[in-house]
Amino acid sequence: MSTEAIETPVLPTADDVHAAAERLRGIAHRTPVMTSRTLDERLGAQVFFKCENLQRMGAFKFRGAYNAVSLLSAEERARGVLAYSSGNHAQAVALTGRLLGIRTTIVMPSDAPVSKVEATRGYGAEVILYDKETQSREELAAQLKEERGMSLIPPYDYADVVSGQGTAALELLRETGPLDALLAPCGGGGLLSGSALAAAALSPGCRVIGVEPELADDATRSFRTGTVQTVRNPPTIADGLRTPALGRITFPLIRAHVADMRTVSEQGIVEAMRFLWTRMKIIVEPSGAVPLAALLADPGAFKGMRIGIVISGGNVDLASACALFAGEIGVA
Amino acid sequence: MSTEAIETPVLPTADDVHAAAERLRGIAHRTPVMTSRTLDERLGAQVFFKCENLQRMGAFKFRGAYNAVSLLSAEERARGVLAYSSGNHAQAVALTGRLLGIRTTIVMPSDAPVSKVEATRGYGAEVILYDKETQSREELAAQLKEERGMSLIPPYDYADVVSGQGTAALELLRETGPLDALLAPCGGGGLLSGSALAAAALSPGCRVIGVEPELADDATRSFRTGTVQTVRNPPTIADGLRTPALGRITFPLIRAHVADMRTVSEQGIVEAMRFLWTRMKIIVEPSGAVPLAALLADPGAFKGMRIGIVISGGNVDLASACALFAGEIGVA
Repeated sequence: MSTEAIETPVLPTADDVHAAAERLRGIAHRTPVMTSRTLDERLGAQVFFKCENLQRMGAFKFRGAYNAVSLLSAEERARGVLAYSSGNHAQAVALTGRLLGIRTTIVMPSDAPVSKVEATRGYGAEVILYDKETQSREELAAQLKEERGMSLIPPYDYADVVSGQGTAALELLRETGPLDALLAPCGGGGLLSGSALAAAALSPGCRVIGVEPELADDATRSFRTGTVQTVRNPPTIADGLRTPALGRITFPLIRAHVADMRTVSEQGIVEAMRFLWTRMKIIVEPSGAVPLAALLADPGAFKGMRIGIVISGGNVDLASACALFAGEIGVA
Repeated sequence: MSTEAIETPVLPTADDVHAAAERLRGIAHRTPVMTSRTLDERLGAQVFFKCENLQRMGAFKFRGAYNAVSLLSAEERARGVLAYSSGNHAQAVALTGRLLGIRTTIVMPSDAPVSKVEATRGYGAEVILYDKETQSREELAAQLKEERGMSLIPPYDYADVVSGQGTAALELLRETGPLDALLAPCGGGGLLSGSALAAAALSPGCRVIGVEPELADDATRSFRTGTVQTVRNPPTIADGLRTPALGRITFPLIRAHVADMRTVSEQGIVEAMRFLWTRMKIIVEPSGAVPLAALLADPGAFKGMRIGIVISGGNVDLASACALFAGEIGVA
């Protein structure tokens, strides 16, 4: 991620989020908003969960990918689209390609879980594997872009992706009305900045709070210091939030519209997952449980409030999740 | 379960199910109906899941318990209610008692999982533990009934319980319109017979099919032979369906309104659970996955149909479920 002085890109606005919502109507699921009496009683607050784990392909990422790809010109679409991701963005772009009849190529690390590679191929994408030790995915993608004329759809630092991601919070706020606080997980900041745009428009008094793992606290440090900070391969179980840094689009949006950032422990993430699985009966991936972990860690800060939480996704391997619950892997 | 010739009890009707639905309005959750494009494509059918795993206390059992208890007289309520159950019925009666301000006593085996005992106590019930080897829960309950004058709420063989259970299918059919088939798990037959009453009224052409584990196929044998057959402590992972036999109310209702019974393998139940957890992102207990297992085992029989499935509950210990998925326990 470059920090050199370059022209500030054009930032998306709440109008773009509204337009994206129109574009996604009837295509993305209007995911349910769930509540838990047990949780509300425990916290003395009212919590509304926007369940993007029940979104198509299992995560909010479909919103941004579909919005971005559908805004390409006919000529660009004909040449196909390209993405690099080992996670939900890969499947989001692949599914979008299938729905729109567009050829997709996804660059993934050769050590990506077989299940993710298979799922991406299952949506009809070509998967190109690269060796993380010896190859750079950026260079590989640039080469494919050059050779094939494909359009690259970045996972978060791209205006039309950000406005797509904001539609989840938009739907939530339309359903709940104004909220006192809105919590979203923060990796590269696409979901958080899109959510903040939606909240600024529909619920101006709402405090938007980004949450990330202590082990991957680059966005919190960036937010506090005012300059983009980075992390490198942070060993958090929240695999969707291992992104190295905020982007040129997401950072200024977060600075402008986000009220605060919080961090949570790995153990806190597992406990939040356990609550969502056993009490609310929904499968949530570690990244998706991060905002609830922030609530559970500091209930006093949210007492009496009406709080929205975006549950980002539910794509988790059962064996890995079971190992987490059993305390067998990687919880510091 | 007695099979001696005794007077046939008065059976509940579809009107009773409608009345129960009114009684439960605003008290039971109107649980969501979920669908899966992946499943529909795979089966060449349209499947609607009524998600009672998202019901209060995590299972449809709340409907029957609340309906039955709320029909007791003021005098009966004042003396309290009594149930024996090691499963969801215990929590259902306990929660009902808390909501209606009625004292509840639950008789549970001393080897019941601590989590279930704690959950039942958490709803404010008195839990009396008994030793399965040396004590009879029926005798213990009869003694409590005698000493304290409490009303016993049976888990399934009781008209007001059956009509309450039927409200889940009623809501489903009101939402989907007529269906070609409706599948429900069958233990003691409360959910199945209640669902059949609802279907007979709202979707007369709908084939109602009961599904049970091969290892606990008493209801299937009863259905085929016309006389009540029993099983004893069947070693199925579907712990909600280990009931010894159909009852005096549920058996005639099933004979009158159910089109067919099917059985599924233990491995089939685990695979259906895996689909619900990983693809639909919902936590379903083994008993709740039984109807989907029947669909997956014989997709040809349901091709082109609109099919309803009642997912009975989601109360499963994570460690046990993880052991099932890992193939570590009890799958024949």
